[in-house]
Amino acid sequence: MTIKTIYSFGEGKAEWKELLGGKGANLAEMTRVGLPVPPGFTITTEACRAFFAEGERLPEQVTLELRDALMELQTLTGKELGNPNAPLLLSVRSGAVHSMPGMMDTILNLGLNDETVKGLAQLTGNPRFAYDCYRRLIQMFGDVVLGLDHYHFEQIMERHKHAAGLRLDTELSAKHLHAIIEEYQAFILDKTDQPFPQDPFEQLRQAVEAVFQSWNNARARIYRKIHHIPDDLGTAVNVQSMVFGNRGNDSGTGVAFTRNPATGEKELYGEFLLNAQGEDVVAGIRTPRPINDLAHSMPEVYEELTSIAHKLEQHYQDMQDIEFTVEQGRLYILQTRNGKRTAQAAVKIAVDLVKENVIDREEALLRIEPEQIERLLHRQFAELGDRKAWVKGLPASPGAATGRIVFTADDAERWTKAGEAVILVRPETTPDDIHGILAAKGILTSRGGMTSHAAVVARGMGKACICGCEELRIDGSQKRVSAGERVLHEGDRISIDGSTGQIFIGELPMIEPVLSPECEELLTWADEMRRLQVRTNADTPEDAKKARSFGAEGIGLCRTEHMFMDAARLPVMQKMIMAETLAERKEALAELLPMQKEDFAGLFRAMEGLPVTIRLLDPPLHEFVPDLEELLVESTKQQMAGSIDPHKRKEQEQWIKKVRALNEANPMLGHRGCRLALTYPEIAEMQVEAILQAAEECQSQGIPVQVEIMIPLVGHVNELKRMRQIIEGAAMKRTERNGSPVTFRVGTMIEVPRAALTADEIAAEADFFSFGTNDLTQMTFGYSRDDAEGKFLHTYVDEKILPENPFMVLDRNGVGKLVRWASQQGRQTNPQLKLGICGEHGGEKQSIQFCHEVGLDYVSCSPYRVPLARLAAAQAEVKERRKQRISR
Amino acid sequence: MTIKTIYSFGEGKAEWKELLGGKGANLAEMTRVGLPVPPGFTITTEACRAFFAEGERLPEQVTLELRDALMELQTLTGKELGNPNAPLLLSVRSGAVHSMPGMMDTILNLGLNDETVKGLAQLTGNPRFAYDCYRRLIQMFGDVVLGLDHYHFEQIMERHKHAAGLRLDTELSAKHLHAIIEEYQAFILDKTDQPFPQDPFEQLRQAVEAVFQSWNNARARIYRKIHHIPDDLGTAVNVQSMVFGNRGNDSGTGVAFTRNPATGEKELYGEFLLNAQGEDVVAGIRTPRPINDLAHSMPEVYEELTSIAHKLEQHYQDMQDIEFTVEQGRLYILQTRNGKRTAQAAVKIAVDLVKENVIDREEALLRIEPEQIERLLHRQFAELGDRKAWVKGLPASPGAATGRIVFTADDAERWTKAGEAVILVRPETTPDDIHGILAAKGILTSRGGMTSHAAVVARGMGKACICGCEELRIDGSQKRVSAGERVLHEGDRISIDGSTGQIFIGELPMIEPVLSPECEELLTWADEMRRLQVRTNADTPEDAKKARSFGAEGIGLCRTEHMFMDAARLPVMQKMIMAETLAERKEALAELLPMQKEDFAGLFRAMEGLPVTIRLLDPPLHEFVPDLEELLVESTKQQMAGSIDPHKRKEQEQWIKKVRALNEANPMLGHRGCRLALTYPEIAEMQVEAILQAAEECQSQGIPVQVEIMIPLVGHVNELKRMRQIIEGAAMKRTERNGSPVTFRVGTMIEVPRAALTADEIAAEADFFSFGTNDLTQMTFGYSRDDAEGKFLHTYVDEKILPENPFMVLDRNGVGKLVRWASQQGRQTNPQLKLGICGEHGGEKQSIQFCHEVGLDYVSCSPYRVPLARLAAAQAEVKERRKQRISR
Repeated sequence: MTIKTIYSFGEGKAEWKELLGGKGANLAEMTRVGLPVPPGFTITTEACRAFFAEGERLPEQVTLELRDALMELQTLTGKELGNPNAPLLLSVRSGAVHSMPGMMDTILNLGLNDETVKGLAQLTGNPRFAYDCYRRLIQMFGDVVLGLDHYHFEQIMERHKHAAGLRLDTELSAKHLHAIIEEYQAFILDKTDQPFPQDPFEQLRQAVEAVFQSWNNARARIYRKIHHIPDDLGTAVNVQSMVFGNRGNDSGTGVAFTRNPATGEKELYGEFLLNAQGEDVVAGIRTPRPINDLAHSMPEVYEELTSIAHKLEQHYQDMQDIEFTVEQGRLYILQTRNGKRTAQAAVKIAVDLVKENVIDREEALLRIEPEQIERLLHRQFAELGDRKAWVKGLPASPGAATGRIVFTADDAERWTKAGEAVILVRPETTPDDIHGILAAKGILTSRGGMTSHAAVVARGMGKACICGCEELRIDGSQKRVSAGERVLHEGDRISIDGSTGQIFIGELPMIEPVLSPECEELLTWADEMRRLQVRTNADTPEDAKKARSFGAEGIGLCRTEHMFMDAARLPVMQKMIMAETLAERKEALAELLPMQKEDFAGLFRAMEGLPVTIRLLDPPLHEFVPDLEELLVESTKQQMAGSIDPHKRKEQEQWIKKVRALNEANPMLGHRGCRLALTYPEIAEMQVEAILQAAEECQSQGIPVQVEIMIPLVGHVNELKRMRQIIEGAAMKRTERNGSPVTFRVGTMIEVPRAALTADEIAAEADFFSFGTNDLTQMTFGYSRDDAEGKFLHTYVDEKILPENPFMVLDRNGVGKLVRWASQQGRQTNPQLKLGICGEHGGEKQSIQFCHEVGLDYVSCSPYRVPLARLAAAQAEVKERRKQRISR
Repeated sequence: MTIKTIYSFGEGKAEWKELLGGKGANLAEMTRVGLPVPPGFTITTEACRAFFAEGERLPEQVTLELRDALMELQTLTGKELGNPNAPLLLSVRSGAVHSMPGMMDTILNLGLNDETVKGLAQLTGNPRFAYDCYRRLIQMFGDVVLGLDHYHFEQIMERHKHAAGLRLDTELSAKHLHAIIEEYQAFILDKTDQPFPQDPFEQLRQAVEAVFQSWNNARARIYRKIHHIPDDLGTAVNVQSMVFGNRGNDSGTGVAFTRNPATGEKELYGEFLLNAQGEDVVAGIRTPRPINDLAHSMPEVYEELTSIAHKLEQHYQDMQDIEFTVEQGRLYILQTRNGKRTAQAAVKIAVDLVKENVIDREEALLRIEPEQIERLLHRQFAELGDRKAWVKGLPASPGAATGRIVFTADDAERWTKAGEAVILVRPETTPDDIHGILAAKGILTSRGGMTSHAAVVARGMGKACICGCEELRIDGSQKRVSAGERVLHEGDRISIDGSTGQIFIGELPMIEPVLSPECEELLTWADEMRRLQVRTNADTPEDAKKARSFGAEGIGLCRTEHMFMDAARLPVMQKMIMAETLAERKEALAELLPMQKEDFAGLFRAMEGLPVTIRLLDPPLHEFVPDLEELLVESTKQQMAGSIDPHKRKEQEQWIKKVRALNEANPMLGHRGCRLALTYPEIAEMQVEAILQAAEECQSQGIPVQVEIMIPLVGHVNELKRMRQIIEGAAMKRTERNGSPVTFRVGTMIEVPRAALTADEIAAEADFFSFGTNDLTQMTFGYSRDDAEGKFLHTYVDEKILPENPFMVLDRNGVGKLVRWASQQGRQTNPQLKLGICGEHGGEKQSIQFCHEVGLDYVSCSPYRVPLARLAAAQAEVKERRKQRISR
């Protein structure tokens, strides 16, 4: 490492985010554009990586540069670290490339010791303030650097408050605080065999190391995993001269968003705590006041803040989340960053920024995470009528949720694993609760505001959250919560509406959501941009209509087997399966025919001439018959009881025999898909007949129809060839009978690796390919999804043996290679070949990006993912255009 | 079709086999080199294809050429078709490109009618002969051309014999025959509404059409399927002037092999029937005399035949199977072809021909079908001691077989499907029995000689066969067979030795075979030629030793799981599986460790320094626990009976719980292979420890050891990376403990499609790849072998949806593409990478050819297939060299 590892805020700029971290780069940028930022410097992420490379030791070079940077800072501020006459106090904060709010550690008031605290008391004329700062430093240092749980320090303080008969921290006098500090120092010496370091530079060195170390604490690692942040980036450390929001009622600290992060409305939004330091706001321990109050209490400060907010938004071309402190009437900006926001707000802000000519449409499209669009389709409560809320809190993260009450993060996780929907109810949340927030459907806290930990994290995850519901009395030890007369216990059901802050007892009915006008507008831009078409996987007219309302341009996959699972039809299906002769089987099929015809006619009507891809029967027949285990146990029971009549006994035996015959060692790889159709062609013939009858009926009623018949599980071109013969044979018979005017395409799923490998041959017989990436992933990896997810896939993803669950994100290196190969080879044989994807990956953004790159014609996904897919497809195109522009 | 479709024997030559068929080309060739061949002409296979293309009608052009060819033949012979004064009589025989003995139809004596028969009687002075010829013509014509079962004709003849009180056909007088002919003609008129055609040219035309048609009869189609002969080749038809072996005791007909087709000895070998026509020999109805008898009865003919035989063998450079007829002391050669032979004879003949400088070693290697070598390893009966044969017949096809007696081909097939080994016992076999011969382990007939249908077909298939055991009285209708006092029934067990002709009652013990010196010599030539190494799949020292004795150069796959299935070990294995804690599991593993060590030490000793590839545990754990169904039924029974003590009940419940937890929807794609090792690393650690202990022990005893540790079911490079860490960690621990001197390679199976697709990445972590083409085929096709073979694969192969069963012959287009890709990519990353195959395909000739082409280093197969693989590998190299020579 020979390059510089520390930069003063005056040296850096926004573009150096990789090196300086998000916060450091922003502090530098703000300093550069002349905002009132307390001076300081940033230790680079590179230094952090070197720290880890040297076995968690600060490299010599960094220590040397640290001394130089400190000198410079002392010159700039006219203060000196450890000088009681002009004590320089510092904050030491983490600042990673990607924001990880509250995940890593911070130390404030660094530079205080038994001497400088006296100087500070004298200089400020406020001994209570000085000793409170010192107390906070020792407590934070003890917790973060020395690993002593802050609980111990709080205990000590509680004891002192109790002894003095006080309730609030703020009531403690300088003398009380002095005594507390002495006890803190004794506690540290006792626990660590080392005194609290009096050398301020030693404090600084240890603090920097501790912040670096906090990159790898458990909650930071979980957060990175959830947000797909690489583990080897490291964090920068920002060392900044302190300003104090806790120097009286002309001081304070707050957080301001340049727009409303819940709705996207253009308004200065945020919270402010008088006479407090920053961590009091973020931790949510005290409930802050809305930022508008500042307009009354400190109008100049409010004015300046508004102007700075506008300047920052214009500068960064995005909604900003600004941390500020007011020290004795003077405003300091401590941090700015792109503000986290709800999905709804994200869309509104992006669309508004286009209209305000701040960004263009391409940029707006990239601003929205496709998953956010999906989140907008989360369900909401139905009309409440005269139903009254039990209590009300702050609407911290929108969306509705219902579930059973739990009181700890661990319980939330445990109950969820057991299949229960839960609402996590806590006085406040801390970073240690993150796994519980992840597991819960919604979060409810009695303390903290819109920018409290719970609120920020829940918004990031798109979970419903209500904060600061102070009416609630939460008793975690007894696992109960009460308000007024009413007491609820663990396991009781509640419903929370994060958009309104209302909390209801019991489970409320939900309704289907609609897209906001801004969202519709954004998606229209997406439609103009994207090259990929978006279809839907739908088996019913209802789903088909829903998907069309979300913008689907056709059905990419209709699974006909779901139609047979209906209670009215299953017995007929079973009759077909139990048939001993072809004639019997045909009889049962004839019964199914009119039902199937109605199914298809419904879909054609719903799609009004858009393509409808119908896949012929796919699953093995044993999916339609009773479970063998149950049959055997039942039969054994009845046999032992001797209570069964011979006729019934015989029937039972026949069932067992048939089910046993149908049973397979590996049904995934067994007698299903076209293998079934080729051994029982009469089933496929019935389905084709039903499709044609339905299409004819619709056409005769003036409804246009575009039929695509899809063959599942083809692995050899001859399978498709035979299936085409069967289908065309059935169609021919119909044409001969009544001159059917229906035309159709015949295509195939590409879901067996061999089909992809021999796509050149198969394409000669296919009008289209649809990549069935669920099965293709199963077979390419050799994973049975049913078995893998419970038994080893979890471990594989946790231990990073696999970078992602390949059933969620398409595996580019393996499965993707097959998709690419098959697309190229297929098109080479048959340039007219249409290419699509209908596995679950068709509704996942990274996979859609891949489909775009490979040049597919369409993706097909579940109705609720159609808007997501429209956006993701547009983003893929924007990225491609930008790349081309750069390479030009 | 504008080219010529008929060639006289004088025009063609041996090279025109595709056009003239094997027989036609040989007749032309023999004519060309001046052998005494009755003149005639050949209608080409092209005419046959045209016949089928025109809807089974003889094209006009062919009919015209037929007239011309006939004219020419009449000129050449001085006889005339239909002229009573000089009647030309013709044989009309099929002759396909590949010999299909007895599968298609033949008509003899064509040209006889009510007039010419009189002329023939007068010319030969032998009315009995003339009318017998005519009777045979009508009977054959009725059967072959008119489709009237020969049974009806035999009935008529039997009636006449009975009426006249005669026993043998030869006792019938001209007058009897005349009466039979009249009745034959009446029968034909009655059944077909057409008289037997008196126009000889019409006879000829119809006969040619019938022979063409016989290309597609059922038994021909089955034969082609067994021998992999394409269905669209068609057959040629040979029309030849008749010579008569049935003109008295100075006439006769026979078959001669230039070497003994059973042993390969260089001697004129064959059979001869006095006063008979050819079909009497082939059908095996009369038992002929050995050819040596001819030396006494017709010394000049024998002399001439010996000389012609030698000439033909030199000319064709291979052992010949010659059909000849003697007409009134004059020898005619009717046909020659490369003679079918036993595997043993094939090897001896090939090696002898090299020593006689007739062919070179490369040619000799190509002369043997690799399957023939495998057949030489068929087991034989153990020393018989004083055990006496029940009866004895002709040793028609060598090898030993035991099984239950069946009396019809259909029964043979049915019983075999039910899992029984059967011996098919028939008076004689006909081409209609071919499916039964295919199914049976061995064939036993009471009639017919060494060249009878049963003998020829059985030798071709490598089945044990005893013919002409005339002591046997076979009663098919009662399903019993007797000899002397002893009567056996259907289902009774017998043992037959096709090498000696001995038949034993009951089941005889078998012994392991050894290779003949000629075979050893041939395989030595193969070893000098081949580029591919041959290893073996062996799990026990016994198998390993056996394989080495067959020439294996290492173990390519040792499946460690088989070692745990042993009755003594299974309980310990189950204890390991049932373990609730890591400590309990480790305890059970510690018990297994010394057993595993002994297993491995045994293998190392057997292989004495050759590479030994040990695959770590592969199958899912549920393979080691009881069946869930059985457990459930048992538990339900006991519960209902209320008879179980609580302790036992609890144990049972634990088992059910565990087995249920281990159960998988698709175990093929489940928790097995390295997935098991990565979730329970302690199992792999134990195995590695056992390997190292065993290797150390052997090395300390002066036995060299070459260890290769193989990881199953890798699909992602990270799996192999982790496994390598686990293995090297275990090795390191051992080295630290006692300085283990053992070195080893770590490699991986390539059996998951994704592994093949990402071979470039995986090769960076692997010392070797071993293609596990069994699983690779399952996953690439998406076939569960267990399910597919019973449910649809059979239909797929029968209906030609698949060209071959891909579990038998490696699928080049699909699976092969993966193997090729992985080999190239793997070597590109890691040029040192060793490549092998250990699926069943490693012992199949076409697949071995593919492995050679792809450039693998070795194939590994079961011990009994090692010699086959050595030969197949050499053949691949010979073919490559020949190709290079041609392209130069």
